[in-house]
Amino acid sequence: MALTLDQLNAASVPEAVAMLDGVYEHSPWIAEAALSERPFRSLAHLKHAMVQALQAAGADAQLALIRAHPELAGKAMVSQSLTAESTNEQSKAGLTDCNPEEFARIQQLNADYNTRFGFPFILAVRGPRGTGLPRSEIIDTFARRLANPVDFERGEALRNIHRIAEIRLADKFGAEPTLGHDVWDWHERLAQHSDPGYAEQGQLTVTYLTDAHRACAQRISRGMRECGFDEVEIDAVGNVVGRYHGSAPDAKYLLTGSHYDTVRNGGKYDGRLGIFVPMAAVRELHRQGKRLPFGIEVVGFAEEEGQRYKATFLGSGALIGHFDQTWLEQQDQDGVTMRQAMQNAGLCVDDIPKLRRERERYLGFVEVHIEQGPVLTELDIPLGIVTSINGCARYVCEMIGMASHAGTTPMDRRRDAALGVAELALYMEQRASQDPGSVATMGMVHVPGGSINVVPGRCAFSLDMRAPTDAQRDALVADVLAMLQSIAQRRGLQYTAELAMQASAAPSDPAWQQRWEAAVQALGVPLYRLPSGAGHDAMKLHELMPQAMLFVRGLNSGISHNPLESTTSDDMQLAVDAFSHLLKQLAAENA
Amino acid sequence: MALTLDQLNAASVPEAVAMLDGVYEHSPWIAEAALSERPFRSLAHLKHAMVQALQAAGADAQLALIRAHPELAGKAMVSQSLTAESTNEQSKAGLTDCNPEEFARIQQLNADYNTRFGFPFILAVRGPRGTGLPRSEIIDTFARRLANPVDFERGEALRNIHRIAEIRLADKFGAEPTLGHDVWDWHERLAQHSDPGYAEQGQLTVTYLTDAHRACAQRISRGMRECGFDEVEIDAVGNVVGRYHGSAPDAKYLLTGSHYDTVRNGGKYDGRLGIFVPMAAVRELHRQGKRLPFGIEVVGFAEEEGQRYKATFLGSGALIGHFDQTWLEQQDQDGVTMRQAMQNAGLCVDDIPKLRRERERYLGFVEVHIEQGPVLTELDIPLGIVTSINGCARYVCEMIGMASHAGTTPMDRRRDAALGVAELALYMEQRASQDPGSVATMGMVHVPGGSINVVPGRCAFSLDMRAPTDAQRDALVADVLAMLQSIAQRRGLQYTAELAMQASAAPSDPAWQQRWEAAVQALGVPLYRLPSGAGHDAMKLHELMPQAMLFVRGLNSGISHNPLESTTSDDMQLAVDAFSHLLKQLAAENA
Repeated sequence: MALTLDQLNAASVPEAVAMLDGVYEHSPWIAEAALSERPFRSLAHLKHAMVQALQAAGADAQLALIRAHPELAGKAMVSQSLTAESTNEQSKAGLTDCNPEEFARIQQLNADYNTRFGFPFILAVRGPRGTGLPRSEIIDTFARRLANPVDFERGEALRNIHRIAEIRLADKFGAEPTLGHDVWDWHERLAQHSDPGYAEQGQLTVTYLTDAHRACAQRISRGMRECGFDEVEIDAVGNVVGRYHGSAPDAKYLLTGSHYDTVRNGGKYDGRLGIFVPMAAVRELHRQGKRLPFGIEVVGFAEEEGQRYKATFLGSGALIGHFDQTWLEQQDQDGVTMRQAMQNAGLCVDDIPKLRRERERYLGFVEVHIEQGPVLTELDIPLGIVTSINGCARYVCEMIGMASHAGTTPMDRRRDAALGVAELALYMEQRASQDPGSVATMGMVHVPGGSINVVPGRCAFSLDMRAPTDAQRDALVADVLAMLQSIAQRRGLQYTAELAMQASAAPSDPAWQQRWEAAVQALGVPLYRLPSGAGHDAMKLHELMPQAMLFVRGLNSGISHNPLESTTSDDMQLAVDAFSHLLKQLAAENA
Repeated sequence: MALTLDQLNAASVPEAVAMLDGVYEHSPWIAEAALSERPFRSLAHLKHAMVQALQAAGADAQLALIRAHPELAGKAMVSQSLTAESTNEQSKAGLTDCNPEEFARIQQLNADYNTRFGFPFILAVRGPRGTGLPRSEIIDTFARRLANPVDFERGEALRNIHRIAEIRLADKFGAEPTLGHDVWDWHERLAQHSDPGYAEQGQLTVTYLTDAHRACAQRISRGMRECGFDEVEIDAVGNVVGRYHGSAPDAKYLLTGSHYDTVRNGGKYDGRLGIFVPMAAVRELHRQGKRLPFGIEVVGFAEEEGQRYKATFLGSGALIGHFDQTWLEQQDQDGVTMRQAMQNAGLCVDDIPKLRRERERYLGFVEVHIEQGPVLTELDIPLGIVTSINGCARYVCEMIGMASHAGTTPMDRRRDAALGVAELALYMEQRASQDPGSVATMGMVHVPGGSINVVPGRCAFSLDMRAPTDAQRDALVADVLAMLQSIAQRRGLQYTAELAMQASAAPSDPAWQQRWEAAVQALGVPLYRLPSGAGHDAMKLHELMPQAMLFVRGLNSGISHNPLESTTSDDMQLAVDAFSHLLKQLAAENA
């Protein structure tokens, strides 16, 4: 019979510690320390208290905890002496059925890993869905993590321990994240569609109006109908639009959604999470036969990534009346124009202007998105409140010095283009670090035709600078460009710097951001605010109506645009719960 | 009637200033200041005194001198109002015959140049051979120099003014550098041979045992015979060996020479100068019917650059018994093995071991070489004494961090591989600057697959470190590698660093270096010592016998491995004179 939070909150400390026995391997002290935070408002609250207890305990205690895990993912994976707990977890991952090659490979990895890190490899083998990882994925993860820097890998071990604890807690409390599992499964199903050339290799690529893309639209449409949306349509640019009516025919709408296209060999959750989370919340309303004083319009945007055509944010742009007619004549790599692709998909180009939404018919726009960054996962916090979508400026630059012989040109007679760039890179790092939320990156650095024995005469490089407000970005850009000039002058270099892109910041609307904060707090999840460094469809809607975003933690350092992009069904459940809470709150406000 | 140095030395100051009138445009004060250095031992001495007078006068006086030159290479180039002096120089360069397009182009360049630099374009239009530059070359130089940094171009203007003065002095004193002109012409003639694919584009490329290479050997052989060498042969690896017998049949030999192969699209003087300068000196001996108490063996080494095959220093290596038999099976880019190439050239591979020289038969080895660096030209000094051929160590490296999203990864959570490399590059610059004669270069820097919006996860780079002694090089290498490790540790990066090449320093033999110094001083040329940053055949001979090198100033910042490599026939004359002086001194020692 499952535990309840009430029982845990009411129990004496020794009783409560006993209730939480085994959640953290051989470490009842973690439960004991966390209990000082009682009463727990939610499982999320309890989990975070335990995370904090371990954090506060310091590096030695953390290492001891990691080392208390030999059997879980180490030798025990392939031995007969599994603990009952571990046996259960291992068998869910199928690890008890290793063939001899897999067995040998795991043994070798264990040996290498221990040599390199001095602690055992820890992996939550039940995986982000709780149903177990394939053996091949476990082995791949093992091999990949072997290459991590030591301190990073220690953090990764702890994160896996917290994930194991989360799964064990769910078992103890009988708290299956059923909505999260559904959302997880919807992503899996949608990810079965991939463009030719990628599908064959198991890679996910869905670009604008390919067969796979149109299949995705079809699947999302059908999913929306199954969830109980009243109207579902694919619009003139391929957006999938589902409307769940409000209680009154003239009710305003809450607009939400995100994109279903992907980058090449991308992740499964980028964009799509922002479609499926609201769909799950609407399904709950529909199941309960509930209508709100406002309608809910969920849009699966057809295009955000600008992959097949250079037309980033095409889907959300259409909703605010941005559609560049010259895009229609762009050709993809096979020479197919966008116009042909749209005709082929049965889309009516002439109707695009009609997609523009009327501001007064909407309450605002919210968007759920996977973080695509490491912040939440490193803090062990499942949800994050977006304060602003950072403004951005990008430059493509070249530093020009004089190429000369590396042996014969004395140090004080050089005009080394790469050294000027090196100085600028380090200045950028230091300058961006001064401002909260700013980032600056030199992503491309190249000495063209460089030789080991030639002082670089040229160095091509790029600048990417972002900040939560335009003013903060502009100050950053001005300082970096001024430094570029001063370095060039001091070193006798010349340079070019071409603005490649500039986008305004989209600060979250305070009232809408506050609604997300209230939702997250109601779940017992710690409140964490962060800017979004990446651009999102919300940037476009920002130009028409108030907007605010919710981030969901990503695993694997928050890696994105990569097949390793991942999150858990537990975190997805929290996102659905937060969305539902936001609806409830909005209903109360509009009652 | 030509002036003589004796007249100049004996004259009163006003008389002497009048004698030197017009050498520096409208600036008799330069002559006047230089006269305090009387008596002048040579024209070289006078020239250097004038260079120093201008140097001492400071930036304002230098700029005034540059601005005193409007007619020379500015408007006057194409106007009718040329001074008598300029008319003479201009007509030698054919500048008075500009067609309308050239006229318009030069006018545009003059306008652009004046706008950019604020002073007129100065070029010694009579060129390094004194016989005038083609109009197309003048225009190309003009366009190229327009891109120079301002302070560099000011130096280049002054260097051209000194060159103009040198030509005018030669006219006044009737001092044609006839031997220098011959050596110049020999280079021109040899440069007519170039490998297919390059010859068609007017580029000079002579790689091991191509038809062009074999034609060069043939021409050098014939040139040696014409100079009066007693024995001339092409040896088993293609070296051209000329011997001028000593006065006694058992006399020892002075060994000298350099290589006649080139890099791809290389310069005309790299290597070859060290063959032709001794040839000219031997021709003088032969003309005078003179024998020395030692023989002179001049070797044109067949291979130094390692272009067609990876077998650098093949020619000089053979003389010390270094010939790697595995080289024979190396294939060039057309699949031709070195063995086939040698057979095709009629070379007898079996005889290679016999090329090894017996130490006791030689006095030592000297080598004349163009500097391939900017030191002498920037100091306005025509010859340089090499103190050591720098030891070298090269590494091919990679820094490995974690690629992540440039927008979403906060500054303090990055593992930016390129920033670690940037730090190391700046450290190298600072560390190498601490030691006299050391250089350190990061010639290759590349973020593979870098994107404007991705934090670099990898950065490939190279290290090239050189120093006049092995101990100094080793200390430099150790410090740089220690810093690499410390940067990587601090930034959570990993790295690989693979030693790609290591060569020992070859310090000049003190007695032989002293002979070059005496020769240079006897010419009235200021003494300047410098290490050789580049490798030379002398490094190989160093392993068998004492050696010392003489450098000849290169124009165009001493650029090398480039068609712009150049030097003047005046400097070549000085090199022949220095070589002849060294022979004379050695004869006296061995009398």
